[in-house]
Amino acid sequence: MPELRKDPILGRWIIIARERSKRPTDFPVDTSVTGGGFCPLCPENEKTTPNEVLVYGREPHQPANSSGWKLRVVPNKYPALVIEGELDKQGEGLYDRMNGIGAHEVVIESPNHADQFAFLPHEQMMLTFRAFQERIRDLSHDDRFVYVMVFKNNGKAAGASLEHTHSQLVALPVMPRMLAAELEGSKSYYTYKDRCVFCDIIRQEIQQNIRLVCENERFVTLAPFAPRTPFEMWILPKKHNSSYVSQNEASLADLTRIFSETLRRLDACIPGIPYNFVLHTQPLQSGALDHYHWHFEIVPKLTNIAGFEWGTGFYINPMPPEDACRYLRQVEL
Amino acid sequence: MPELRKDPILGRWIIIARERSKRPTDFPVDTSVTGGGFCPLCPENEKTTPNEVLVYGREPHQPANSSGWKLRVVPNKYPALVIEGELDKQGEGLYDRMNGIGAHEVVIESPNHADQFAFLPHEQMMLTFRAFQERIRDLSHDDRFVYVMVFKNNGKAAGASLEHTHSQLVALPVMPRMLAAELEGSKSYYTYKDRCVFCDIIRQEIQQNIRLVCENERFVTLAPFAPRTPFEMWILPKKHNSSYVSQNEASLADLTRIFSETLRRLDACIPGIPYNFVLHTQPLQSGALDHYHWHFEIVPKLTNIAGFEWGTGFYINPMPPEDACRYLRQVEL
Repeated sequence: MPELRKDPILGRWIIIARERSKRPTDFPVDTSVTGGGFCPLCPENEKTTPNEVLVYGREPHQPANSSGWKLRVVPNKYPALVIEGELDKQGEGLYDRMNGIGAHEVVIESPNHADQFAFLPHEQMMLTFRAFQERIRDLSHDDRFVYVMVFKNNGKAAGASLEHTHSQLVALPVMPRMLAAELEGSKSYYTYKDRCVFCDIIRQEIQQNIRLVCENERFVTLAPFAPRTPFEMWILPKKHNSSYVSQNEASLADLTRIFSETLRRLDACIPGIPYNFVLHTQPLQSGALDHYHWHFEIVPKLTNIAGFEWGTGFYINPMPPEDACRYLRQVEL
Repeated sequence: MPELRKDPILGRWIIIARERSKRPTDFPVDTSVTGGGFCPLCPENEKTTPNEVLVYGREPHQPANSSGWKLRVVPNKYPALVIEGELDKQGEGLYDRMNGIGAHEVVIESPNHADQFAFLPHEQMMLTFRAFQERIRDLSHDDRFVYVMVFKNNGKAAGASLEHTHSQLVALPVMPRMLAAELEGSKSYYTYKDRCVFCDIIRQEIQQNIRLVCENERFVTLAPFAPRTPFEMWILPKKHNSSYVSQNEASLADLTRIFSETLRRLDACIPGIPYNFVLHTQPLQSGALDHYHWHFEIVPKLTNIAGFEWGTGFYINPMPPEDACRYLRQVEL
């Protein structure tokens, strides 16, 4: 019997269609890559990107945009939004528009072209999570922006147009719809219960222990109750906190550990699986929120899934999260 | 300068990134097909599908599930929802679930395996639009259902798992999120202005004439102001009407004509383009609505588009609808 499940935050309904259930190896994966030829993100090619806005690991006496770095953040050469100008909000009859002001940056997570994010050494991966903090903090000083979207497209099927491992930041002048809905949903839960819905979820998941993929001192990885795709996972801090930026070094280290473990478990289930991850954190100009809880969502991109989901917001998922969780836990790392 | 645009119904923001603009021929298209070998939707193979629930064109003295038909509707052999049982709504701690009760049907739009929907003869295509009406009307008698989602996945990249031309109906016990948001958005516009937002859009688009792809006596095809993808199009009746089912024969004929023209224009711009279309109509148990206006949305599926859009509800579209409209209009049919 298939099952309908409602995400308690967004009110989004999901069909768990057990009858369509598959083993991980039944999913076809396009492991072809985009690369070959010239890579603008590789060392020695620094001059082909716009000037870096953050760098880690280069000797202080070396010039900017030279090699010898461990991580670079550069503006996207083909930005979806541009940094200079005014919003200039206007109407056109019944429509509303404004200029596409924003920042669009690329985090080059390693100098080595062949590295995969999931398998970066601890110190190297941690630089990425630190760079996210530092860039969000910097962009928050620009009061045209209300939110910084941090995400990674890993693999061609998940939208990556360059093979070299990287993630992206987009600073936005309007709130993305998904986050607005999440803030609204968690606020209304808080108003009713006087508790954070994410804290309640973490408490219930640790107790039930059927969708808990892994944990360490400060973090948990869950297969969410109403996942959009097979192997969707959320990584959340155990202690209530609405701001990614406010994390200390110990928390960043624990985040890096659980992120690495989570992605390696996923990759062991479906080698080369394409995925997106998205950081969900409080809006730039808001203070600490009692009802919101920052986290990462990891959404694998499996071909031949999706279809009408896209146009309707109604997802059909062939794999119950409890099954996905079992596969993920069985992995020996 | 890129531009932000807000859909006036959903409040969804879109980036129009002109700098990333492309000509239609710049988009890579996967024209590979899924078929080859046995097709369960072809004549002579009727026994391999579940028993038909509707048939057109077969001689009355012929037995059910035999060949000689022009269109068949059959239950999906691998349904996402099942027709028999009770909803049995339950909680599990803070989560909510119910059984996946519903109907999932396949409309086989032609007996000819090689036919493409866009190029069906008028009479044949019209049978599909009539079948949608008839099946929605029939499913509306089951009071467990609140909505019937009608959609087509055309091409492998758009989620089609069978090559033989077909569309699908899913009767749902809960309202799909996208429709709920649309009903809410249009209701709030109506409360404020005392006018239907879709009627206002049609009026403005006919007057501005920069996003109007084509029209006939009863219908218009628009490139919407804030499209999610290149070449997204909406087909709407000019006269206010919230119910697809209530259309008469003359309206069905005009719908067929404009649908055919719209898809042929699209296919001429990008031959073999995969796309989804979704019918948006009033909920099953609602009466006629002053604030809602039924329509079809056609969303092409172009690879290497999308990425973080999926996880955030924030779409980046490299082609302004005015440009898409110009390409579509230039086609000589």
